[in-house]
Amino acid sequence: MNVIAKITAPTVTTGPLPASRKVYLSGTAHPAIRVPLREIAVHPTAGEPPVTVYDASGPYTDPDATIDIATGLPRHRTDWALASGDVEDYEGRLVKPEDNGNLPAEKLTPAFPVAHRPLRAKAGKAVTQLAYARAGIVTPEMEYVAIRENLGRAAEQDQRARDGDPFEAEIPDFITGEWVREEIASGRAIIPANVNHPELEPMAIGRNFLTKINANIGNSAVTSSMAEEVEKMVWAIRWGADTVMDLSTGRNIHNIRDWIIRNAPVPIGTVPIYQALEKVDGIAENLTWEVYRDTLIEQAEQGVDYFTIHAGVRLQHIPLTVDRVTGIVSRGGSIMAKWCLHHHRESFLYEHFDEICDICRAYDVSFSLGDGLRPGSIADANDRAQFAELETLGELTKIARAKDCQVMIEGPGHVPMHKIRVNVTKQQQLCGDAPFYTLGPLVTDIAPGYDHITSGIGAAMIGWFGTAMLCYVTPKEHLGLPDRDDVKVGVITYKIAAHAADLAKGHPAARVRDDALSRARFEFRWEDQFNLSLDPETAQLYHDETLPKEAHKVAHFCSMCGPKFCSMKISHDIRAEAQKEGMAAMAEKYRAGGDLYMTPEEIAAKAEPAE
Amino acid sequence: MNVIAKITAPTVTTGPLPASRKVYLSGTAHPAIRVPLREIAVHPTAGEPPVTVYDASGPYTDPDATIDIATGLPRHRTDWALASGDVEDYEGRLVKPEDNGNLPAEKLTPAFPVAHRPLRAKAGKAVTQLAYARAGIVTPEMEYVAIRENLGRAAEQDQRARDGDPFEAEIPDFITGEWVREEIASGRAIIPANVNHPELEPMAIGRNFLTKINANIGNSAVTSSMAEEVEKMVWAIRWGADTVMDLSTGRNIHNIRDWIIRNAPVPIGTVPIYQALEKVDGIAENLTWEVYRDTLIEQAEQGVDYFTIHAGVRLQHIPLTVDRVTGIVSRGGSIMAKWCLHHHRESFLYEHFDEICDICRAYDVSFSLGDGLRPGSIADANDRAQFAELETLGELTKIARAKDCQVMIEGPGHVPMHKIRVNVTKQQQLCGDAPFYTLGPLVTDIAPGYDHITSGIGAAMIGWFGTAMLCYVTPKEHLGLPDRDDVKVGVITYKIAAHAADLAKGHPAARVRDDALSRARFEFRWEDQFNLSLDPETAQLYHDETLPKEAHKVAHFCSMCGPKFCSMKISHDIRAEAQKEGMAAMAEKYRAGGDLYMTPEEIAAKAEPAE
Repeated sequence: MNVIAKITAPTVTTGPLPASRKVYLSGTAHPAIRVPLREIAVHPTAGEPPVTVYDASGPYTDPDATIDIATGLPRHRTDWALASGDVEDYEGRLVKPEDNGNLPAEKLTPAFPVAHRPLRAKAGKAVTQLAYARAGIVTPEMEYVAIRENLGRAAEQDQRARDGDPFEAEIPDFITGEWVREEIASGRAIIPANVNHPELEPMAIGRNFLTKINANIGNSAVTSSMAEEVEKMVWAIRWGADTVMDLSTGRNIHNIRDWIIRNAPVPIGTVPIYQALEKVDGIAENLTWEVYRDTLIEQAEQGVDYFTIHAGVRLQHIPLTVDRVTGIVSRGGSIMAKWCLHHHRESFLYEHFDEICDICRAYDVSFSLGDGLRPGSIADANDRAQFAELETLGELTKIARAKDCQVMIEGPGHVPMHKIRVNVTKQQQLCGDAPFYTLGPLVTDIAPGYDHITSGIGAAMIGWFGTAMLCYVTPKEHLGLPDRDDVKVGVITYKIAAHAADLAKGHPAARVRDDALSRARFEFRWEDQFNLSLDPETAQLYHDETLPKEAHKVAHFCSMCGPKFCSMKISHDIRAEAQKEGMAAMAEKYRAGGDLYMTPEEIAAKAEPAE
Repeated sequence: MNVIAKITAPTVTTGPLPASRKVYLSGTAHPAIRVPLREIAVHPTAGEPPVTVYDASGPYTDPDATIDIATGLPRHRTDWALASGDVEDYEGRLVKPEDNGNLPAEKLTPAFPVAHRPLRAKAGKAVTQLAYARAGIVTPEMEYVAIRENLGRAAEQDQRARDGDPFEAEIPDFITGEWVREEIASGRAIIPANVNHPELEPMAIGRNFLTKINANIGNSAVTSSMAEEVEKMVWAIRWGADTVMDLSTGRNIHNIRDWIIRNAPVPIGTVPIYQALEKVDGIAENLTWEVYRDTLIEQAEQGVDYFTIHAGVRLQHIPLTVDRVTGIVSRGGSIMAKWCLHHHRESFLYEHFDEICDICRAYDVSFSLGDGLRPGSIADANDRAQFAELETLGELTKIARAKDCQVMIEGPGHVPMHKIRVNVTKQQQLCGDAPFYTLGPLVTDIAPGYDHITSGIGAAMIGWFGTAMLCYVTPKEHLGLPDRDDVKVGVITYKIAAHAADLAKGHPAARVRDDALSRARFEFRWEDQFNLSLDPETAQLYHDETLPKEAHKVAHFCSMCGPKFCSMKISHDIRAEAQKEGMAAMAEKYRAGGDLYMTPEEIAAKAEPAE
């Protein structure tokens, strides 16, 4: 490691969430791994253990961790990569002026202060999780994921009756490293984990795992800076983003990305065509395979974990979009369409897909095959353009997997509720069960300003149907760039959608948190209600607006109904009465004496005795 | 009419929404009716007609209307009622001190300044819409509803291909008064319209009509006043609430309700047990049939359009709730459970249900049969207590219909996604297709502060499955009383859910607004995007945060991507290029020369010629 300069690092939000403690679990096959989980304590009067939840927030919520943005997070995965014997370090590509938009020194975002030599696969080696899985190897990443997904459950305990409709998903009661390996080997799941992102806390994306969410950040030509983007990343994972996409499109794109990745415990995704376009001054027709290829290597060396690649936008698909209400709404898709049309040539991404796979294979960059022709309006949902591209993505999935590359598939977009499910079934059929990664979908077009909600509805449903990762949409969608507050609202909305999907799929541990919170609600443990919620700050703020006093935190009512009308309070009275008398005995008495305590079936049975 | 006193009336929000014009359509059978709709103009460059939308906002958004809260809205339905010859006016019940919580004069909310003699059915007559429908009469209310639901469409035009999955719904292309009559006669729909609420603009609730939403308002012992509640009502309907429930539970309950009803163009619902409980000082066991009966007459004379009556909470059901995680969460349900348990007697609501029907029949107060045992947590969803009560509600529906009373059925609550649909199918089977009216449902318990979203997901789904009206949930649910901002967020969220349901059911006109907004988006008509949205103010505010200048309202990009990366801009370039060359001709050229423009099917067909 080589410290280039001392500079003023941006500050980020740190510290634990309320009543929360970070715990780390070790591996068995890989004892050195330390898998983070979050324990939320409940009030002693509850007589309940803490609730353990998935924790994507990284060291930022660990009061024992030293955070120095200018140094970056600890690089624990370097040892894992070196231990494989399959990687080598090398000099790497030199940063070029066009990587940052040819900015003069005074306008340049400072380079990240610490430089690292990149790693790549040795000649003839594949270093992807898929290659290892196929070889029967349970990597540290796989065991890490297994422990993480179990949410602190041990194999032989904490089982509850399964309750859900998982459609095609097959979710085990307990997850082992070997099971993770099988899921990766089958292609049903991926672990996006570039060998050059050793700061990563590995996670899996697949329909048999917990539903994940992605948050997009990134500056644009119009607004925002490095410090804002690093904080947005830390802020997004604090509230639960499982991966973060850096969609920056302005200048300083290389340097900002370095700052983000070196401080990111979650996988970072990008759309490399954005930077490639910057390098040719925004003129789509001037893009070349060489510029694009160089950008892929630049970003792979930095540690990008997954690339959105719009190789499914083929020349032949473009006429299918001409009669659409909203044409092509994917930025990457429209760039490629313009290139194809201008040159009257097949997409260079499609034609060079083999070579792209070779690059991804050398660093283990996962594919997120982009849906460049996704519908941008209800009118365009599930049209021929969309599904023609999906067929091509299925074809590309086979090519990538033949090269041991990990693949997920991006999906829409804007889709009315009755057309959502077929998106999942078609994707699974056409793309060999590769994980599906959708943007919403928005179930109506008429609510700009509320598209976190229009899309949260679609996201919950498509997650239930089998989508593995949900890309968030913020309230600013269609209107402007999200700020910090928008990022939080987007993340919380998508945590709701993902969790609702896990509940409906019948994930064996999903309901633990719901039940704990509902018990707290019923027992008027207000602090526990706040602490167990997805956003304790907002829950408490709303409560305190009408009842700010500390005494009201233990009050057996709230401002909604006041003490006399509190149904929960009355329910307690009822329960107390039942316990006093013995509800069963009381029911018995009434059964003997009349119909008052009998169920309708019992009354019917009494009226018409069974023969 | 008799003016009691001059007092300072509260101010409410008035004026049209942006680019909107109120239009009124007349009837054919009933030429005097004036049915309001809202026309949203689009920019002349669009070359499109205005978009006509449903309008629940009443005269408040009509710049030509004179609004005087102390006088109340025009009483246009009085003539309709008198024309029937079936009603008589009478002296009415005197207001008693306990109606307003026995408050001293200085603490009393002033009585509404204008008194009206109440109407009721003449002896032996039924004045319900159901009675008229069964008699083959298309009432003014029915024709009003028919015109309203067509959204300005004429019979022979504006038809588009139907696209949706309506489940059991059968939505006609065009709605006539006679069709409305059939729906009412069958009990599949209701028109809540008390003869003493002549200010009402009639609307229908039924699965074959547009999905409706309800907003709850009401003061509590802890907070709020008459002026706030009247403004909340006006504010809620401004954003689209189709009915409003006054759930007040504190003092002044009678007088506040009078102010609300006299100024309400939408049906007002109440839960009469709340006021009855106030009259017995909040002691549930002191409730009597006599107090309750008197309250029903009091509220029927005021003009309440529907009563929530928890007559399905029977003594025998109470033991079924004892092992629940959250017991009984309905206020009315818990009050009745406490009464039953204390007296070890069957519910007086159940025992006197016949007499309740007689009262409702005399004024046409619709039943909203309450789900007092709805689940208050994911753990309790679809349990025996919930469905046992639903069976009783089915039994009560038959009794009410036999008395010509209109009935809808209330539903949950907290339900995970995979358990939602069966709630609708069971309700339809058990309750003879009576309209279903659900609270959400919330699809997870873990997000207090965001329960408009957790419930908006469930509401959209259950609306699609056939629920006729969705009761909103605000961000403050479980935490505090909603303020004006919360009411708006709740209403907009539920307008999204209801509209998403209409789209998925394939309502013939639902997509008109989506398509118009999406075209505006694609053509960079920013103002039209704002104006066509459910909340133009918020949409414009978010846009202007990053691009405030007027010039940016006509800019062909936004702050999300900036000009270079705008996919819509590139799509326009593509379309222009396609038009220049003729995309079809270009495709032809390529078909001749190679596979570039061929679809995968065409390529496959070429490779393997059909036999």
